[in-house]
Order: sequence, then structure tokens, then C-alpha cells
Amino acid sequence: MTDSFHPPLRTLMGPGPSDVNPRILEALSRPTIGHLDPEFIKLMDEIKGLLQYVFQTKNELTLPVSAPGSAGMETVFVNLLEPGDKVVICQNGVFGGRMRENAIRCGAVPVMIEDDWGKTIDCNKVEETLKQNPDAKALAFVHAETSTGARSDVAQLCELAKKYGCLSIVDSVTGLAGIELYVDKWGIDAIYSGTQKCLSCVPGLSPVSFSEQAAEVIRQRKTQVQSWFLDLNLVMGYWGGDSKRAYHHTAPVNSLYALHESLVIVKEEGLENSWVRHARNHAAFAAGIEALGLGFVVDKEFRLPQLNTVSFPSTIDDAALRNALLSEYDLEIGSGLGSLAGKVWRIGLMGFASNQRNVLFCLSALANVLSSLGHPCDAGSAVAAANASYGKS
Amino acid sequence: MTDSFHPPLRTLMGPGPSDVNPRILEALSRPTIGHLDPEFIKLMDEIKGLLQYVFQTKNELTLPVSAPGSAGMETVFVNLLEPGDKVVICQNGVFGGRMRENAIRCGAVPVMIEDDWGKTIDCNKVEETLKQNPDAKALAFVHAETSTGARSDVAQLCELAKKYGCLSIVDSVTGLAGIELYVDKWGIDAIYSGTQKCLSCVPGLSPVSFSEQAAEVIRQRKTQVQSWFLDLNLVMGYWGGDSKRAYHHTAPVNSLYALHESLVIVKEEGLENSWVRHARNHAAFAAGIEALGLGFVVDKEFRLPQLNTVSFPSTIDDAALRNALLSEYDLEIGSGLGSLAGKVWRIGLMGFASNQRNVLFCLSALANVLSSLGHPCDAGSAVAAANASYGKS
Repeated sequence: MTDSFHPPLRTLMGPGPSDVNPRILEALSRPTIGHLDPEFIKLMDEIKGLLQYVFQTKNELTLPVSAPGSAGMETVFVNLLEPGDKVVICQNGVFGGRMRENAIRCGAVPVMIEDDWGKTIDCNKVEETLKQNPDAKALAFVHAETSTGARSDVAQLCELAKKYGCLSIVDSVTGLAGIELYVDKWGIDAIYSGTQKCLSCVPGLSPVSFSEQAAEVIRQRKTQVQSWFLDLNLVMGYWGGDSKRAYHHTAPVNSLYALHESLVIVKEEGLENSWVRHARNHAAFAAGIEALGLGFVVDKEFRLPQLNTVSFPSTIDDAALRNALLSEYDLEIGSGLGSLAGKVWRIGLMGFASNQRNVLFCLSALANVLSSLGHPCDAGSAVAAANASYGKS
Repeated sequence: MTDSFHPPLRTLMGPGPSDVNPRILEALSRPTIGHLDPEFIKLMDEIKGLLQYVFQTKNELTLPVSAPGSAGMETVFVNLLEPGDKVVICQNGVFGGRMRENAIRCGAVPVMIEDDWGKTIDCNKVEETLKQNPDAKALAFVHAETSTGARSDVAQLCELAKKYGCLSIVDSVTGLAGIELYVDKWGIDAIYSGTQKCLSCVPGLSPVSFSEQAAEVIRQRKTQVQSWFLDLNLVMGYWGGDSKRAYHHTAPVNSLYALHESLVIVKEEGLENSWVRHARNHAAFAAGIEALGLGFVVDKEFRLPQLNTVSFPSTIDDAALRNALLSEYDLEIGSGLGSLAGKVWRIGLMGFASNQRNVLFCLSALANVLSSLGHPCDAGSAVAAANASYGKS
């Protein structure tokens, strides 16, 4: 007979899922109600309003897709692109490559712009490419590359998209609520995110938002959206503003309780305060990392405070270190992906997990394990550097 | 400022979600761990084994899709069908129609067989159609039509599919764990279900299973699966038997805790015992409904015990009745869909909700509300009839 599963109590400082606020876990377990219950419809309206707040948008077409971030990406691509459409895609990590996969599967034609992993997107190259491709329908790029920890200049990239008559498509799975993001002010046409990063919610949902121009493109499609489940023309019959909601699919009711609670928490703190907190904890962590003699992959200006990509010397046994952190400290950090595999750790300070306790705990555990693996280093100096960054003596 | 959401405490006796076992809600709220954590990989293996048990299959390709039942349906269609493929689809309710939508969006050619809503699928018509379409790749049909409460003869339909060289595709969103279902014995090639029906779990996941022959069809495709998120060739890198799991998307970790617990509960009870319990509570409920002078849409032989489609005279105000049940009794029952709208209620007795308390409560509340709406009826006789069915005097 199989027993119930009782997970170990981890501290989640990888690339996501991040530590979930206990308030959100409690909300998740509230009694299930029907997906067409009038009380649930009210909840949906509140979620929409709160998502508009965290996205900083008035977009009517703002909702959580009932599946993880990858499905949010697919929602954007299958709804906006039709066979033969050309889309310029910036790739400086894993997720630009996944955008390409999505574009191809829509029958669209991707034009790729490559930047080194860990670098920000080169706006000059983007402008050059847009100039050479006047028939491009959209410019797609990642705001916060989860695979490298690099931030891109969304405002400038959206301006370029507008200048060359393109829709802008933005992946902000790791960005939302962790760093500045203004959907309306920056003129973003389509954006998707995830719940398990800086919202500190459980994984499984993908908030999306579309400008009126993008919504019109979807309404005016010549071909049907290839996915029935992700077809926004249908989904909006359920999530739309009308009080009469047509059944499309059964919403993940309890996950939406959790998302609602996570958004209430962001609103209580204030979005700008959340950004400041992420920056402050990152600064302390970075001071500690440098005190340990380790470095960062990304140039300071473009570092994501919520995802620290720490480079380490090749003499360090990557797997042994991460295994020791997990087994001896119940601490999860992430490994490198793609061209950064075996060369970096990805250490998240996302949402609820972006706090002083996690910063000091991670620095201490990392120093101890490094020492035990034969790389002597001084936890004390790392902790002191972090404390100094917090303004403590 | 938006407040936390506290749902009302409903009794869920609609077409799903059904009442969630409190053990499952508790499991749902356990601390989140990483989707690549070795403890999570063990959990995934257990879930796979438990799904094989409830599906009664040894199929290697058995897993929960990270999205609701509609995405399970789409997973089956986009993976098995390629542009130009012909698929014979039986429609005797809403979900056969949704299968058609999915087939078309895959570029496949659906050949429809229509039966009246509330009737079982006519196997003679199916054989006739398969004879006339020797090039059909698959036969698709619904095991337990959630929109009508009718059961189809899966064993016979699968035999026909085999006889005419077709893959069989079965929708058992509402069937799984509520009535007899033997994936291997009946020779089902592809099946999808949902978590929010007779598994009594929260909505948001879709268990699927594919025979070796179907898996081979997927591996041998000439074209790429149009959905990146649902492409099983990729998903299996994460859910496959290998101990090394490749990141595809972030699994909905907590929902999978809940699914695991729901499957453990089914195993504790025993699958056959669960089927018997559903039948027993249905019989008592049906006796009560008949004592109230109400009828059933579906012929006795093909009635789903977990979804009772009760017909009522046109003098009864459908919306007023359901509103009164919800507001005065916190009891949710379902309305009719499509051609049955305004003519029937869909009353679920699914999984955890299939119990004596719900049977008696629903009969009593229904009798009271009918009387208050000017249709005098005797709760006492309904309760007595149900009790007699349970073998109580």
C-alpha cells in the first residue's frame, strides 16, 4: 500500500518554485467551490483587478491561464501568430529558444537575434534586424532570463517594436513583482508570467495580459487558433467582463484561491516596495558572495536581483555542492542550464524568499559546504559583508 | 484594499468539481518543494504507479497532464493526429463536439456519428461508419458523457476500433474511479480523465494513458506536435522512467501532492469497492428521485451512477430552484447543457461526494425547495425510498 506523501521542509532558493508564503498555502486548501459559483465569479473579477495592478495595466484582456508559464508562452504565440507570420525573437538564454520553438509550431517564421548567455539584449542589433525585416509582425524577447539572470531593457525594446510597426511580446515569468515592470507605460502588447517566482505562489498558473491592439489582432485572425484549450476567443467567454460566464474548461479553483492571496499580499506590501525589497536583499547577498571570492555572470547593471547567477571556479564539484546543500541544509539552489551548465549556480531570492534570513542562511551554508569540499572560505566575512549592506554593524 | 477570499462552504453535487476530501485539501497545502527535487521524483513515480492502478493498465506512457481535462483531450488529439488524418468521432453530448473541434484544429478530418443526447452510442452505426471509412486512423468517443449522464459500451467500441484497424480514443473525465474501466482488458489506446470528478481532487490536472501502439504512433509522427507544452515526446523527458529528469515545464507541485493523496485514497478503498459505492448511492438517490415524481433522462442500463440527469416538468422554474438550493442550502447542482438546457438538472454523486449524507441531504433540500416554489412534494417519502434502497427500514 502506498502511503501519503510528506515532503521535506526545504528552503527554495533555486530558479523557482520559490518558497511559498504560508498564507498562500493556507488559502490553497480552502474548501473548493464550483467554477460557475457566483462567489467564484466575484473572485475571478478580483483576480483580474489585482493582476492589472501587478502588471501596471488597464488591459481588459488580463487573466491567469490555467496552466504553467510554458502554457502562458504558448497562449501568446498561438493567439497572436498565424501561419506565415514573421516574428523577430531575441535569444540570450533558454527561453528565447523556447519562443522560437513555439513560433515554428504555429507555422510562423522566426528571425533570431542571438546574444551571449548572461548578456542583456543588444538594442542596436534589434533595430538593425527590424529595419531589415519590415514585414515582421512581432518582436519577442525575455524581460528576466531565468536561465542566466540577465534583465533586458523592456522600455527601449518596446519603443523599437512600435517604431517598426511590430507587436511586442514579453516573457516576464521571473520578472513580475521582482523588478520594475510597467505594461502600459512601456507599451507592451502581450506579456506572460508565472505564479511560482516572485509572486511566491504555487506553480501551475500563468498570468497574461494583452493590449487592446493585440486583442484586436486576435479577434481579426484569418485562421482559427490551433489550440482549443488556449484559444482566447473562447477563454474570454469565461473570463470576460460579462456577468454571464460561459463554461469553457473547469478552472483550477484552489490554485486561483492561492493566486488571489499572493496578489493580495503584493498589494498589501505595495508593488514598488516589493521591488525595493528584492533589490536590498540582492545587494546584501551579492556583497556576501563577493566576500566569499565568488563572482557574477551578469554585468551589475543588468543583474536580476531575484535570480543571482553565481560563477564558480572549475575546481569546485558542482553536483557535490548542490547535493550537500540539499541533504545537509534542505536548501535548494539551481544548476546552470545550456552553455552555463556546470559553471554557475542560479540562486533565487524571489518574492517571499527574498528576505534577510534566506540571505544569511544561504551564505553561511554555502561557505560551510565549500569549506567541507576543500575550498576553505570564511562564512564570517560573508555574513559581515551582507550585514554591512543591510546597514548593520 | 482587497481582502483575502474565504469561500462559502458548499456541498458540490454538480457535474464537477465534486466535494474534495479534506485529506486531499490538507495534502494540497503541504510545503512546496522543487520540481526536480529527488523526493519529488519519487512522488512522480508513485503517482504514475497509482494512475496505472486506477486506469487498470501497465501502460508506460501514463501521467497527469499539468492542466485541466480539456488539455488532456487536446494532448491526446495533438499527439495522435497529423494533418489529413481521418478520425471517426461519436457525439451524444457536449464532449463529442469538443473532440471534433480538437480534431479540426489538428488539421485532421472528423467523421461524425450523432446519437441523441442522453442515449448511449449506437454500436451498429459505429460499425457501419468504420466499414465505410477504412482509412480512418482513430475512433474517438466519450465513456461517461458529463453533459447527459450516459455511459457508453467502451469494451465493444474498442473491439470495433481494433476490428477496423483504428486506434481507440476514450474520454473518461467523469468515468474514472466511478464506474468500471479497464484500459488494458478493453484495449483502449488513449484515454484522458480529470481530477475533479470521481477522484475528488481539486480541478487542474488531467491523467492520461497511452497503449504501446499509440506511443509508437507518437514516436513515428511525420510532423511535429503543434503544441510545445503538450508534446509528449518532450513531456516524457520529464515524466519518463529514467531517473534523470529533463526540465520541460515547472510541474504544478502542490496539485500533484493532492492528486497523489486522492489516488492513495482510491487504493485504500479499492477500485472495485469505489465502483460499488457509487452504484449503491446512485440506487438510493434514484429511488428518492422517483418517489418525488421526477424522472431520469437516460435509460436505466446506461445511467452513470456518478452523474444523475434528472428531468423535470416545464412548470418548474429551473434557475429559481438552483438559486434557492445554493443560497438556502449551500448546495450546488448542475444545469442542463445544449439541447438539455432548462429541461434537466445534473446531480453529481462523485467520489468522496458519493455518500449517504449527500443523498439524503439533496433529496430533502430538493423536496423542500420544490414545495416552496409551489410544487408540493413529500420529502419523507423520498427519504424513505432512499433508506429502503440502503436496506434500512
